[in-house]
Amino acid sequence: MIGIKEIASYIPENRFSNYDRKNEFHIDDHFIEEKVGVKFLAVKDKDDDTSDLCVKAFDNLLKKSLLDKATIEVVVVVTQNPDKLIPHTSAIVHDKIDLSKRCASFDISQGCPGYVYGLSIIISFMKENGLTKGLLFTADPYSKIINKHDKNTALLFGDAATVTLISDDPSHALGKCMFSTIGKDHMALYEKDGRLHMNGRAIVNFAAKTVPQQIKALLRVSDIKLKDVDKLILHQGSKFIVDTITKRLGIDEQKTIFDISDYGNTVSSSIPIILEKQLRNDQLKRIVISGFGVGLSSASAILFKEKSPTHVCPNAAKA
Amino acid sequence: MIGIKEIASYIPENRFSNYDRKNEFHIDDHFIEEKVGVKFLAVKDKDDDTSDLCVKAFDNLLKKSLLDKATIEVVVVVTQNPDKLIPHTSAIVHDKIDLSKRCASFDISQGCPGYVYGLSIIISFMKENGLTKGLLFTADPYSKIINKHDKNTALLFGDAATVTLISDDPSHALGKCMFSTIGKDHMALYEKDGRLHMNGRAIVNFAAKTVPQQIKALLRVSDIKLKDVDKLILHQGSKFIVDTITKRLGIDEQKTIFDISDYGNTVSSSIPIILEKQLRNDQLKRIVISGFGVGLSSASAILFKEKSPTHVCPNAAKA
Repeated sequence: MIGIKEIASYIPENRFSNYDRKNEFHIDDHFIEEKVGVKFLAVKDKDDDTSDLCVKAFDNLLKKSLLDKATIEVVVVVTQNPDKLIPHTSAIVHDKIDLSKRCASFDISQGCPGYVYGLSIIISFMKENGLTKGLLFTADPYSKIINKHDKNTALLFGDAATVTLISDDPSHALGKCMFSTIGKDHMALYEKDGRLHMNGRAIVNFAAKTVPQQIKALLRVSDIKLKDVDKLILHQGSKFIVDTITKRLGIDEQKTIFDISDYGNTVSSSIPIILEKQLRNDQLKRIVISGFGVGLSSASAILFKEKSPTHVCPNAAKA
Repeated sequence: MIGIKEIASYIPENRFSNYDRKNEFHIDDHFIEEKVGVKFLAVKDKDDDTSDLCVKAFDNLLKKSLLDKATIEVVVVVTQNPDKLIPHTSAIVHDKIDLSKRCASFDISQGCPGYVYGLSIIISFMKENGLTKGLLFTADPYSKIINKHDKNTALLFGDAATVTLISDDPSHALGKCMFSTIGKDHMALYEKDGRLHMNGRAIVNFAAKTVPQQIKALLRVSDIKLKDVDKLILHQGSKFIVDTITKRLGIDEQKTIFDISDYGNTVSSSIPIILEKQLRNDQLKRIVISGFGVGLSSASAILFKEKSPTHVCPNAAKA
């Protein structure tokens, strides 16, 4: 059994306030708090590159997990904002956290569904290659590509990174996954000349239609009823899109989470940041995760709590 | 059984001649032919982006393979030279070749070992997710990032793309794989400000030491003797490095191939371009493939000819 053992994250302390943009963008508190749902945006230190955010997430993992770095056999970084085109950011992280020579390394380029993709890819890869310990990073610091004067994007995206320890001694197993792509609409969210461009309405329309269908299909093939899902963690695109998908799906609103008002939409990191806080909740036997956006694409999966979790956190007590 | 069904490639017709650079770089025919081993470099049309090269490889796949596009369930592009940072190039390819909405899409950022990584990743992903048809593209048009006046790189890299049809009705199965990364040496090959920089000596030293060791370890865990390998397809880094690894490994020189003098080192496409020509050779029961470079990293794998190949090529006869 290969699955999720632990998650750690890094959210930069520095914040931009969306309340400071009210005059420039002609917006009010209601728009900030109820539509976007983001009051403050986390912004990385100027000198930190994507790999540095990964290293800071990894430092937080070491504080809460017994981990012998020499046992790591694969390191994967999910990002569309790499340090450089060449090499892959995972090779740079491999250097900075000093992993073993016998460790595989590759990056996955995917966007907001990137964590769901990443989980499926690294777990599949580890099973097939007989590996027992791996690190799955997510890091998409959009502050590198945001035009601060573009209302469509400047109020939304925050910087962060996460790392998930994948292990043969997991707390959560990955169930079935479903994926979809509507490539013909890829220009709804793209980078050009180092700047991000977004058609928010097109993405909302895509997600509001595709994601509830995909989650229902996932539950059907998994033979699980919607009422038996204990928690739904949607990509934290905006408050409006999370509310819209929740209603269309018809799931109990108490089972969904929207919790990014203090740091923003962190793209591929948005799901694992939320999931990190839910891992220790033994009441949550079945957690559905679903990401959507860049591509346009979506990915959904179901996580099952393992019966005998073995959360050993010796360093946490010392910290 | 999920494995390789068919491979097609696209090598642009346009060529640069290394013989034209003899005065500028103070080199002679012996250097061009025996050290680098590249006489001409394939160069893409100026207006073709990475996704366009993939589409042209796919067009060539359609000429030699019965393929219903609607059956494709995952499209992967291995590249470190994407069209854009966002979205992933596979979403753009998904659009241009008009794949189904239920198709997964992601890019893998890896370099010269990228085809070996890509095979292991897509096959693992398909097995785990119960998928039966997938497309694995490679495309690294280094002409986008080469400084034409840099002797270290300007004589070496050519443009190309390949596509491998992965199927539950394969002609070749993927055996064991081995991977390694020496992240601390990643600055031996990197991109900065849109330009490639390479320390060729460091890469040769890395590959000459790491690759023979990795291949021997792969054969050991696969319980196969070197003499029972029918063909060794090394990443076509340069004639010097292929010759060096061949000698150090101690394999019969007739079993290795160096065949890029007409188009250059095509990075992640170098192995599948060679492999394409060997797929139909029924004498080759065991083929070892090995890539090395960016990262610095290496990946090696063994391919086994399936007993009942079913090469149906109705369109090839018409072409």
